[in-house]
Amino acid sequence: MDLKELLESIKDYEGKEVTLQGWIRNHRKQKTFGFIDFSDGTCFKHVQLVYDDNNPQFNEIEKYHIGSAITVNGTVVKSEGAGQDYEIKVNSIKLEGDCPEDYPMQPKRHTNEFLREQAYLRPRTNLFQAVFRIRSVAAYAIHKYFQEHGYVYFHAPLFTASDAEGAGEMFQVTTLDLEKIAKSGEVDYSKELFGKKANLTVSGQLEAETFALAYKKTYTFGPTFRAENSNTKTHANEFWMIEPEIAFCDLEQDMDIMEDMLKYVVKYVVDTCPNEMDFFDKFVENGLKDKLNKLINSNFTRISHHDVIEILQKADVKWEFEPKQGEDIAKEHEKYITEYFNGPVFITNWPKDIKAFYMKLNEDGETVAAADLEVPGAGELIGASQREENYDKLIKRMKEMNVPTTDWYLNLRKFGGCVHSGFGMGFERLLIYLTGVENIRDVIPYPRTPGNCEY
Amino acid sequence: MDLKELLESIKDYEGKEVTLQGWIRNHRKQKTFGFIDFSDGTCFKHVQLVYDDNNPQFNEIEKYHIGSAITVNGTVVKSEGAGQDYEIKVNSIKLEGDCPEDYPMQPKRHTNEFLREQAYLRPRTNLFQAVFRIRSVAAYAIHKYFQEHGYVYFHAPLFTASDAEGAGEMFQVTTLDLEKIAKSGEVDYSKELFGKKANLTVSGQLEAETFALAYKKTYTFGPTFRAENSNTKTHANEFWMIEPEIAFCDLEQDMDIMEDMLKYVVKYVVDTCPNEMDFFDKFVENGLKDKLNKLINSNFTRISHHDVIEILQKADVKWEFEPKQGEDIAKEHEKYITEYFNGPVFITNWPKDIKAFYMKLNEDGETVAAADLEVPGAGELIGASQREENYDKLIKRMKEMNVPTTDWYLNLRKFGGCVHSGFGMGFERLLIYLTGVENIRDVIPYPRTPGNCEY
Repeated sequence: MDLKELLESIKDYEGKEVTLQGWIRNHRKQKTFGFIDFSDGTCFKHVQLVYDDNNPQFNEIEKYHIGSAITVNGTVVKSEGAGQDYEIKVNSIKLEGDCPEDYPMQPKRHTNEFLREQAYLRPRTNLFQAVFRIRSVAAYAIHKYFQEHGYVYFHAPLFTASDAEGAGEMFQVTTLDLEKIAKSGEVDYSKELFGKKANLTVSGQLEAETFALAYKKTYTFGPTFRAENSNTKTHANEFWMIEPEIAFCDLEQDMDIMEDMLKYVVKYVVDTCPNEMDFFDKFVENGLKDKLNKLINSNFTRISHHDVIEILQKADVKWEFEPKQGEDIAKEHEKYITEYFNGPVFITNWPKDIKAFYMKLNEDGETVAAADLEVPGAGELIGASQREENYDKLIKRMKEMNVPTTDWYLNLRKFGGCVHSGFGMGFERLLIYLTGVENIRDVIPYPRTPGNCEY
Repeated sequence: MDLKELLESIKDYEGKEVTLQGWIRNHRKQKTFGFIDFSDGTCFKHVQLVYDDNNPQFNEIEKYHIGSAITVNGTVVKSEGAGQDYEIKVNSIKLEGDCPEDYPMQPKRHTNEFLREQAYLRPRTNLFQAVFRIRSVAAYAIHKYFQEHGYVYFHAPLFTASDAEGAGEMFQVTTLDLEKIAKSGEVDYSKELFGKKANLTVSGQLEAETFALAYKKTYTFGPTFRAENSNTKTHANEFWMIEPEIAFCDLEQDMDIMEDMLKYVVKYVVDTCPNEMDFFDKFVENGLKDKLNKLINSNFTRISHHDVIEILQKADVKWEFEPKQGEDIAKEHEKYITEYFNGPVFITNWPKDIKAFYMKLNEDGETVAAADLEVPGAGELIGASQREENYDKLIKRMKEMNVPTTDWYLNLRKFGGCVHSGFGMGFERLLIYLTGVENIRDVIPYPRTPGNCEY
């Protein structure tokens, strides 16, 4: 039986015998009795096992180490101690797997830096047990939302012969022997498995557009790779993205979808994982639950980039970066704006020169129909745009920006093209927002950052 | 409004005005009236639009090309023609995006080979519209099953410094400039972004075991890469795998889970996509629906590799490959065995020398606790095993098989290890089974195979 199942209706089990399998997370021994803090990983909560010297196994059980795997048979009883209503009085325990005393995950406070070095053990700690369950539940909430709204899940290809998708530096993949290249002095790409140079994708959006124009509504949810050599709290070289794409949808409708989707996902996670949320609220980010509940109940502001710059310029703040029309906005500006509106803000209609080639040119000829969603406490969470559906305007912009023109992508504008929009949400950015955890390395089970490719 | 929504309760809309947005899939014109076969991609079924010369737009509409994107406003009426109960009498149509007459997706029979060359347009055809919706729905069914059964979804890392996960040839990833390597004559791996040589993963299983020993039940669902240069119907260099891993679970329990999961997923897809299933049954694999319904209602046979070989040896068949104890079985043997038992078969307890290092050695010292699931018509669908949880036996086996010993993986057997099992299911293999489509290139939106990395 799973501990989750037991705890959900533990009253019904009072006086009954149960068998559980899991791990000893802590063990306090007295002369004639002992307490084991037991977890099986199926829920955030643990249960207390009590045993005393009336138990024929007493001398054996009291020697069990922290970290050991056990099968316990016991009776559910009301607890006399503080901290829990029920506990389990041990009838017998079978030691499934011992754990030596040099086990690194002793029940004391560890730094996140230390735990990163023990990545394969850290899901056994409260913090990471909670973080990676949220990762799982949030991923499911995203699938659930899109599937229930009629979207087709699209697996974008990860190998690509393109080296210019316009979203960042790429990793090259190869089947050539680098040592042989060094020896022979030449690179023969025709010898590659794919017959040419290949890279790892930085975005599935362009391919997702081909599905939107067949299924009307589609979304990707898959890994993405960027070769940036940045060692920051928010950059990883391997991360997961969600990229929905919708035909017959303009930027306003796109924003409606983003707002609806985000509220749904946040609510689903908050409702599904109340214990984890309490933990984050108490130990990671005070006020996290208020922040999330506020988002669920708010109306997102929609304001143009132009008007945002005006507000920033009028603000009585000494900026590190002076806000200017036609230019990008900095982290300090994002923070100010979400505080100014006291909630999530879509900043729309960005200067075309700081945005990607595929975004729809507005009638002013200067701005594009893009919208970035800024949320209090986390900055930019989603980037969105209406896509340029006009063949001539798109090809002109690609040439201006030196983007290689690709027939299939352009042809989408020729063969029954239509107004369409989409957005991209970094999954880890969402998790940072949902958990209050600050470093992207702590929301990915095995993070890949410059210098780190172990485990 | 989505066509799916309309068709689900079209009776209620009789006599009412509706607005739809989608594409002209076919267009038959008569002197005084015309029929448009209309689809918006939200469901497999199309709807017929009828217009006649009482419509002020008649001269315009009759010129609309196949493939064009339109917004149509019309009235739902009973149909007088065969093939549909209701149709839409056009009030007005707005042309959203034209489509020239050289559009490759004309409504006639195309070969799958031709459509592969038009991968970005093929989801607009009936066959691929159905295949890729099944891909989406099956993916969701898998998530739904595991999430509802308390599994934590684990994103395995895709970059790995390991070059021996034991499951196939690896692609190397690099940030080095190959031309410079050729010029300089040396490879300096310390200059890599990760500070060392890195590859793309061939399996997330080993890392998934770390999650099983923290959460009890976990599953991966992500891309996997193999650099094999094989041009067959069943090999792709990039594909998606599902790798569940369960603690306190032996091989028998593991088989229970596989059987339960597979029946759930097949049933979910059959129930959710009846129109697609009818299409496959009629045009792709006669008897497909019977095959799938039979699986849902069958009990999977469990038989040892030893006993399978005996059955094969006794069979009155002239084999291309003679079945032998201690050796692997061929496709012809798989086929015979599923026909012999008239349903899915788990073949268990395989000779250790033809299986992976991590599989649990049975007490006979000769076989391992592995189980392959063979299904009628598709051969091997899932590979499973109990994992060796004994530290000494595992390290001995790794040394025998020249697998580099990894501390973290071995330590899982030291720090509260326990009996645990898991399995790996190739997602595309499942899709081939579900749709009857024979070539893996036709169940992946943008397949990556030797020589093919386009789009």
